[in-house]
Amino acid sequence: MTSLAELNRMDPAAFASAVGDVFELAPWVAEAASGRRPFATVSDLHAAMMEAVRAAARDKQLAFLRNHPDLAGKAAVTPDSRREQASVGLDSLSPEEFARFNQLNEAYKAKFGFPFMICVRRHTRDSILAEFERRLARDEAAEFAQALQEVFYITRLRLAAKMTGEGMPQVNGRLSTHVLDTHAGRPAVGLAIALYELAGERYHPLTTAITNADGRTAPPLIGGRPLPIGRYELRFAVGDHFRRRGIDGGDPPFLDIVPLRFSVAEAEGHYHVPLLCTPWSYSTYRGS
Amino acid sequence: MTSLAELNRMDPAAFASAVGDVFELAPWVAEAASGRRPFATVSDLHAAMMEAVRAAARDKQLAFLRNHPDLAGKAAVTPDSRREQASVGLDSLSPEEFARFNQLNEAYKAKFGFPFMICVRRHTRDSILAEFERRLARDEAAEFAQALQEVFYITRLRLAAKMTGEGMPQVNGRLSTHVLDTHAGRPAVGLAIALYELAGERYHPLTTAITNADGRTAPPLIGGRPLPIGRYELRFAVGDHFRRRGIDGGDPPFLDIVPLRFSVAEAEGHYHVPLLCTPWSYSTYRGS
Amino acid sequence: MTSLAELNRMDPAAFASAVGDVFELAPWVAEAASGRRPFATVSDLHAAMMEAVRAAARDKQLAFLRNHPDLAGKAAVTPDSRREQASVGLDSLSPEEFARFNQLNEAYKAKFGFPFMICVRRHTRDSILAEFERRLARDEAAEFAQALQEVFYITRLRLAAKMTGEGMPQVNGRLSTHVLDTHAGRPAVGLAIALYELAGERYHPLTTAITNADGRTAPPLIGGRPLPIGRYELRFAVGDHFRRRGIDGGDPPFLDIVPLRFSVAEAEGHYHVPLLCTPWSYSTYRGS
Amino acid sequence: MTSLAELNRMDPAAFASAVGDVFELAPWVAEAASGRRPFATVSDLHAAMMEAVRAAARDKQLAFLRNHPDLAGKAAVTPDSRREQASVGLDSLSPEEFARFNQLNEAYKAKFGFPFMICVRRHTRDSILAEFERRLARDEAAEFAQALQEVFYITRLRLAAKMTGEGMPQVNGRLSTHVLDTHAGRPAVGLAIALYELAGERYHPLTTAITNADGRTAPPLIGGRPLPIGRYELRFAVGDHFRRRGIDGGDPPFLDIVPLRFSVAEAEGHYHVPLLCTPWSYSTYRGS
Repeated sequence: MTSLAELNRMDPAAFASAVGDVFELAPWVAEAASGRRPFATVSDLHAAMMEAVRAAARDKQLAFLRNHPDLAGKAAVTPDSRREQASVGLDSLSPEEFARFNQLNEAYKAKFGFPFMICVRRHTRDSILAEFERRLARDEAAEFAQALQEVFYITRLRLAAKMTGEGMPQVNGRLSTHVLDTHAGRPAVGLAIALYELAGERYHPLTTAITNADGRTAPPLIGGRPLPIGRYELRFAVGDHFRRRGIDGGDPPFLDIVPLRFSVAEAEGHYHVPLLCTPWSYSTYRGS
Repeated sequence: MTSLAELNRMDPAAFASAVGDVFELAPWVAEAASGRRPFATVSDLHAAMMEAVRAAARDKQLAFLRNHPDLAGKAAVTPDSRREQASVGLDSLSPEEFARFNQLNEAYKAKFGFPFMICVRRHTRDSILAEFERRLARDEAAEFAQALQEVFYITRLRLAAKMTGEGMPQVNGRLSTHVLDTHAGRPAVGLAIALYELAGERYHPLTTAITNADGRTAPPLIGGRPLPIGRYELRFAVGDHFRRRGIDGGDPPFLDIVPLRFSVAEAEGHYHVPLLCTPWSYSTYRGS
Repeated sequence: MTSLAELNRMDPAAFASAVGDVFELAPWVAEAASGRRPFATVSDLHAAMMEAVRAAARDKQLAFLRNHPDLAGKAAVTPDSRREQASVGLDSLSPEEFARFNQLNEAYKAKFGFPFMICVRRHTRDSILAEFERRLARDEAAEFAQALQEVFYITRLRLAAKMTGEGMPQVNGRLSTHVLDTHAGRPAVGLAIALYELAGERYHPLTTAITNADGRTAPPLIGGRPLPIGRYELRFAVGDHFRRRGIDGGDPPFLDIVPLRFSVAEAEGHYHVPLLCTPWSYSTYRGS
Repeated sequence: MTSLAELNRMDPAAFASAVGDVFELAPWVAEAASGRRPFATVSDLHAAMMEAVRAAARDKQLAFLRNHPDLAGKAAVTPDSRREQASVGLDSLSPEEFARFNQLNEAYKAKFGFPFMICVRRHTRDSILAEFERRLARDEAAEFAQALQEVFYITRLRLAAKMTGEGMPQVNGRLSTHVLDTHAGRPAVGLAIALYELAGERYHPLTTAITNADGRTAPPLIGGRPLPIGRYELRFAVGDHFRRRGIDGGDPPFLDIVPLRFSVAEAEGHYHVPLLCTPWSYSTYRGS
């Protein structure tokens, strides 16, 4: 980790060595930003780097985009790229999935002349595929702008991971829940929760938790990172909870595992998805 | 169909021919009931037949129970038995399932000396298996009483299917829903609903429906028959509904397919499972 | 009551005598409609009478409007007018209220040249005053049209009260409720409900009811008449209900009398205002 | 304010001067506690004082109780008593109310031989009257114990107001709310809230607030003091909120002022009473 204060004092070579690889194979971005020092915030540093990209000639921008590896391709050349693609499982695709990505990559490059850019840490596999198909249908101007925007998301995350200091960019989202037993008028304590990500028709288990004395989970279900855009299902063991309390909810119980299915659209947002339940009713809402 | 009025006037032979097969291979039950005529209601007729079984000597009751075929076995000897077992898919088990039922049948008969009786029309495959395992663990007195009770459920349904007249026994349950769009303050019209039965971890599709102008389905999702005891999931295409109304609920929408998962415990009950929804919240409850 | 079939067969004098007083002191309206017979529905008859008014010269329309008594005035000349004004308490105003209405009547007539028309059976005292002040601020064209519309509401009700036959106009609204005890998963039976109309800051009691076995009231809280536009409060004795069930909801109970306050905007609409409650939570919605 | 550390080091005379008046006209309580120093927590100090009262002979306890002034009486002799009684309006009763309290005081003293003790800061006028009538009906043993318990509530509050240090006793409750606009899926910002206390059939306004960016009020509606036991009504200007958002909720709006009426039973509890609303529905619950 480098502090913003140090970075502001470095000689140009040290600065380039510290943040030159944030923009993939494009040390010129950091060079341009170097002269704009000192920065009051890490967000200002990122803004200066984005400005350098936006100010570059179209040819240089295009060459920069072309330097990026294919999504899920074999040739992710930098360690950052490799790590990011692995984070969402793109390094362990089935042969069919690999073929599908390959086909989309080729079609995209054939149409637009640069590889498909997406900040994978902000997405699930499902939403990457959905975006790929949606963006393939758009026109070149929209896609060129979107490709740069995705680069900015990626580099904002890289910078946030490298730096400390004032004004860190907002890169993290949060998924939290809260279970209220409105039969007892109290938080539901010790209730088991499981979180799944939907991929097509399948459910990938992400995490499990048990509610604490306030009916919440600590830490949040997802936190300290972008909240991947996609579909999720939370499952609450409501039947077990009321059985432990000795409440008759039918045999078998009217409510046993309660599923809440929802989508995340804002990777930096806070999604609070509470459950209010009795043995015979429940409700949920996007809370705050 | 035979009317109760006719049945009350028949000579004993005609009466035996009309309802003698209601109790499996036990014409003596109808013979005993014949002398108690006339019956004011079809339920009274069934009560008289149940009374004949209850009044019989223990040996005769046992012989009667032993005349019933194994559940899911090859030897369902009467057309009624075959039809009933087919209704819940017991005629099309996988080899593993067939082996499992076989093993349970043998264990049950070895322990109790009579075959496992269950009114399959009141159950799902899941709840039949759950009952089988639960009842195998009980004592003989409890199971003997339960076996007769199941016979009474079965014969009540057979009688209800054969007869018309006053005081028909209550054999049917009902599953209904109602979708209110509390964003608009109106019933949700034209919203697609799918109903699934849960069998282990799998979902068997049962039916689909589209809500009418009052946000309901006509006919009810299940009606005119017992409501099989078991687990269900209703899925509501909430995302499509709000998209058609032009309401922004996020991209992807926070709520798309809303699943409600619940169990039925009373086969003759009315389960009303409504959905109140906005693009950002929903609630459900066992209604009436 | 006169049947539509009879009316269609009457000679012109009998027809005039039967429905000539529906439009206040304007027998010419019925005369014009008489020649359009036979009518397939009562609504068609009303449509023909409205058409006669719409087709009249502006002078004749104005004279017709001027024949109507002042709202809450001393000179309601026809029995229908007197009865209608009494129904909403306009015959028993306090001196201050009488003065207020007098002042509004004079201002209205001074501005528009005809008395303030409003179908009082579709309103509460509160909404009549609100309408009076709102409409006083509008322009003459809008008010002339509104005055005729109010005449049509009034005469539709008069006709519906006199006639029987096919195609009766829809003049009635309905206010109903339903109480579900989601703590028990059953309708709340025997729960006391009181309905109030809000007038300024005061609450006028309208009716009380006790929920039946299905958690509803029979008959509906308001039915068989227009639902007066205005503000209402329903009060539910939720604390007593749970006390009778022996459920601990705190001492004093967290929820005792639960008030639901809402407004009616459509006098011919169906307002279903249910309550879902536990000792610790409740919800309501405009249902159907 | 005195710190616990100082108090632990004081000579007996200074100690008596610092906390000798916590128990009304009973310096012997502090004297007994003085010898038990040092105390690790302020709660331990209070426990030692309560222990001194409990260990005293019955005569001494009775004399101590008799030293307290009548509730709402003219003779509240100490400044603490006067302030406490004023806090709940007992210093400004109407002649009728004063007569009612006088009558209850006399009846209570005639029955039990000591004045009615109640920690008025934990109550509303309504709940004081309710307690008075309830406790007047009980037997002497129960009331003697209750009188001491009320003294302990009173002295715990006095001590908490005088002292700083480790382990302060829990004397404060909290009333908070949160408004979620489930039509928009966001907190309702800038929504006006008014809080009333119910006294008989009347509503006494307590406070008003406007929701902040998170849909909450800062500070809480009641905090930093015991939450008076009694009945409350929160009123939310839901109609104005949706009007500002440009959402059509009917004219007049189906929901305008939404009242939530609830009771507080635990003066040291946290009552979170949120509102989830659309223009056509709302729900509330005791949250956490």
